[in-house]
Amino acid sequence: MDIGLQHQSNNPFAYPLGQKVVRLVVQVHRPYRMQEIRVHYGDKYETTYTDVLTMQGAGQGTHFDYFVADVPVPTRRLKYAFEVVLAENVSQWFGEMGWARERDEAVPFYIPYICKRDVFTVPDWVDQTVAYQIFPERFANGNPLLTPDGACGWYDTPTSTSIHGGDLAGIRQRLDYLHELGIRLIYLTPIFRAGSNHKYDTADYFEIDPQFGTKDDLRALVADAHARGMRVVLDAVLNHCGYSFRPFQDVIRNGRRSRYWDWFFIEGDEIDTEAVNYETFATKLRNMPKLNLAHPEVERYMLKVAEYWLEECDIDGWRLDVANEIDHVFWRKFRETIKRLKPDALIIGEVWHNSLPWLQGDQFDGVMNYPLRECILDLFVRGRVTEDEFAKRVTDWQFAYPAQAQRAMLNLLGSHDTERIRTLAGGSVAAVVQAMALLMTAPGIPMIYYGDEIGMQGGADPLCRGGMVWDDDRRDKALLDVVKRLVKLRLSEPALAGGLMRVECAEPGLLRYVREGQTGERVWVQFAAIDRLGAGIPKTARVLFAEQTEPYVAQGEQALAFSEGCAITVWR
Amino acid sequence: MDIGLQHQSNNPFAYPLGQKVVRLVVQVHRPYRMQEIRVHYGDKYETTYTDVLTMQGAGQGTHFDYFVADVPVPTRRLKYAFEVVLAENVSQWFGEMGWARERDEAVPFYIPYICKRDVFTVPDWVDQTVAYQIFPERFANGNPLLTPDGACGWYDTPTSTSIHGGDLAGIRQRLDYLHELGIRLIYLTPIFRAGSNHKYDTADYFEIDPQFGTKDDLRALVADAHARGMRVVLDAVLNHCGYSFRPFQDVIRNGRRSRYWDWFFIEGDEIDTEAVNYETFATKLRNMPKLNLAHPEVERYMLKVAEYWLEECDIDGWRLDVANEIDHVFWRKFRETIKRLKPDALIIGEVWHNSLPWLQGDQFDGVMNYPLRECILDLFVRGRVTEDEFAKRVTDWQFAYPAQAQRAMLNLLGSHDTERIRTLAGGSVAAVVQAMALLMTAPGIPMIYYGDEIGMQGGADPLCRGGMVWDDDRRDKALLDVVKRLVKLRLSEPALAGGLMRVECAEPGLLRYVREGQTGERVWVQFAAIDRLGAGIPKTARVLFAEQTEPYVAQGEQALAFSEGCAITVWR
Repeated sequence: MDIGLQHQSNNPFAYPLGQKVVRLVVQVHRPYRMQEIRVHYGDKYETTYTDVLTMQGAGQGTHFDYFVADVPVPTRRLKYAFEVVLAENVSQWFGEMGWARERDEAVPFYIPYICKRDVFTVPDWVDQTVAYQIFPERFANGNPLLTPDGACGWYDTPTSTSIHGGDLAGIRQRLDYLHELGIRLIYLTPIFRAGSNHKYDTADYFEIDPQFGTKDDLRALVADAHARGMRVVLDAVLNHCGYSFRPFQDVIRNGRRSRYWDWFFIEGDEIDTEAVNYETFATKLRNMPKLNLAHPEVERYMLKVAEYWLEECDIDGWRLDVANEIDHVFWRKFRETIKRLKPDALIIGEVWHNSLPWLQGDQFDGVMNYPLRECILDLFVRGRVTEDEFAKRVTDWQFAYPAQAQRAMLNLLGSHDTERIRTLAGGSVAAVVQAMALLMTAPGIPMIYYGDEIGMQGGADPLCRGGMVWDDDRRDKALLDVVKRLVKLRLSEPALAGGLMRVECAEPGLLRYVREGQTGERVWVQFAAIDRLGAGIPKTARVLFAEQTEPYVAQGEQALAFSEGCAITVWR
Repeated sequence: MDIGLQHQSNNPFAYPLGQKVVRLVVQVHRPYRMQEIRVHYGDKYETTYTDVLTMQGAGQGTHFDYFVADVPVPTRRLKYAFEVVLAENVSQWFGEMGWARERDEAVPFYIPYICKRDVFTVPDWVDQTVAYQIFPERFANGNPLLTPDGACGWYDTPTSTSIHGGDLAGIRQRLDYLHELGIRLIYLTPIFRAGSNHKYDTADYFEIDPQFGTKDDLRALVADAHARGMRVVLDAVLNHCGYSFRPFQDVIRNGRRSRYWDWFFIEGDEIDTEAVNYETFATKLRNMPKLNLAHPEVERYMLKVAEYWLEECDIDGWRLDVANEIDHVFWRKFRETIKRLKPDALIIGEVWHNSLPWLQGDQFDGVMNYPLRECILDLFVRGRVTEDEFAKRVTDWQFAYPAQAQRAMLNLLGSHDTERIRTLAGGSVAAVVQAMALLMTAPGIPMIYYGDEIGMQGGADPLCRGGMVWDDDRRDKALLDVVKRLVKLRLSEPALAGGLMRVECAEPGLLRYVREGQTGERVWVQFAAIDRLGAGIPKTARVLFAEQTEPYVAQGEQALAFSEGCAITVWR
């Protein structure tokens, strides 16, 4: 056989979408010659296959084409094999042991029984939400009494230690702004007591940082958000604590005699905070000692933290910091704990690379989608890929995880850990608009990093953490208007919720994809360079969104796909 | 790029062997032209790769060649990418996003942090054991007082309901026989109270079937086994219960009012044991109602069962019946429970197909290795594969799971669920010898199905469950002698423990593979047809085992590889 076909009877190639339907995905290595792929299937206890479905082409990846079939499994027990039709009446068969010439020589694949607890579910509301990331120290100062002495001016250039005075009351006061923007989910970076301005060095997991307010402030913020149909997710920094965390201080004071000694990974018999002979986040960051979450006490403590804020302040989920350096055993317990308390709470991991091990249904709902960000930047900002390469990479990522996780991905153009999108684009608002249009029409949860919607700029940390601009004349109102329209589009079109982003056309100056909703609705999204304007839009199209961007100067090595000006059109 | 390279940063392509070493496996689609593959790697927080290793060719599969490297990870954090050397000074790079021309264009793969709890461990003793499967009703009658009225003769042809009178006392009396054979692990099919002769329809999970004896009998059996350095594993039938299981009877009596109603999957509001409107094992087997293990009470109950027999009778692990139809959530809790009580207990799942989802380190140690059985039968008994096809299939299976699981696979030629090997071979002892030699020299735990070592015959269930032959003149002593020598070889050669089975030669009439131990010892195993006798055995070889098999008649459609007579040689 010269057809390189890839399939396994597990994630991300085969998985239940529910107790009675299984999604099958096949990768076929290009080039190949064949007419179609059929999946033959039936109950695993039947002697033969009782049904057949033709797989649907679902897109071209970088090296593979994808074919998909959603197979009904009324008895919850499935066996199946693939028939690859090479020409009329000429087929080859593909099963668990590879290729066979005859159907009955192909060893079947099995999904032996779809157990309810193994079916990956994410909260249904993820399909109808747009998120907004807030760095609390920099969003709004609602209670100047909390602002410490020595704070700098709100709009001063941020440094790694500067204090600007943002707080929870400020966020609460600006909920109407966010609501009007269309935001339905707010993600706050850490708010628990900590020494730094970013609060990723937790001193007390059970207290709000006094600079930000009190538990009552958080309760009020969450309650007011809920009243507006908005949810609030907090940042769980469980991989490491801060230097002032009481158990760590106890170890510093009491050494080996401390009952907390084993909460950390300390080399030797004495702790040395100068030489940093203990594991930390990253490398020898003395202020961020790594926690031993496999220690039963630490595990219990941190699960308690997770529960506490759900129960005390009714938050709607957690974003998990450095999620990929904590063990899977802990995350499974974490999910069980959270979902037991609040079944529709959201769990988002911070993982920058391929996240399949965490997206099996037993740990996170989704992750911060940095790989999608890379694709978007490479196309609209860096000029590192062609339209075609972009389409293929995005397609690959769509099949890298189960479909459920794709619905819950937190898609972003930037965060507190990256340069801002507009700065990367050399100041071009046009590039931001293009990137935002892509973001708002891709599968997953689109998330705006605070201020990006009004054209804020800022280089790498700490520069990307400037004070949110509230002065009307320093806000890009045209950009804000486009973003609002995009958010509104996203929330109003069911076709933009969930599902695939199926590329129809990806050639120089033209990118078009179709989005399909759960019930068959379709929406087309098109980016057309100035010389391709109007291409491919049918006369009968009902245009839902149209925007033409100005020319802008490429920042990357190569010419940018749409930098001469671009028409963005969304239609039904 | 025309090199089809497969790698992902998770099982079975990348996984920790310990906290400071990661095994990387790459599949390369044939044909390809390249000189070698190098892995460049370093700490994930370094700006670049600090080290490089050349990957070792590890065998040819059906469509792919395998390359392996064990990468040291002193900091527990790894990033890596592959350099494929096409010609001198001409390389392509392969990373998480596919191919790149330059090193720094390849997006790295990450193993972000090797957490202790995520490292797959299996009991060390699996490397030095040979197992024996006993069907207790048919192995030995040690206490005729327990034999029910109406039992048939010991050697009568078994039927689906016949009772022959085997019991625990009988097994205990025959421990010396097993010990002399070299057996170090005994697996008993179910022994708890049940209606059938096979006891897979449990009536009481906390009682020994009175036909087999008492808890004291089991305690004595286990204690005597332990005294001889042998372990005992029981069969856990948790997917379904028997008709007489008290909770099910309660449902029959009390219908919806029964507190056990939700322990089962019953359609409608009344149970109908005639129409079988409830889920069962397989399809509508009224005597085997499927249990709802996601129900917290059922889950607790069955975990209690698992604990109980470890605590009460000191058994050494469990073989899990129909393991693939029970959810992963349950199995994770099961593993945690068992390993907490007895860290070196063994957990073996019954899964007939690809078992990767259960062999991630969080559920089973190994599974019953039916795919290996298929390979062996196809080569030595059915004539369905050439030596080369056999070698490729066996190689594929060796890379289908993490290396740890390979050590704990329960390799078998037959079981209570299959025809006996000798019967499949048309009565040929020679074929059994060849198959046994393969079994005893393959990675994993070799397991003998009771009686196969003395040449017992029997077709499909119930015929494969005959009374163990204890009459000297009905036992094939020559076969038993060879099997004993093979078992002894297995236990005495560290090279045969764990590791890979690397095929050196697989051509018509000649199959040779090398086995390597953990500390570099090597042993060669060769099957040579009569016209290839002596091929490939170096003059300096120290022969550890030699046996020449008689010619026999092929049962399959095609000629058998070694049926003209075959020299089996094992040397160092």
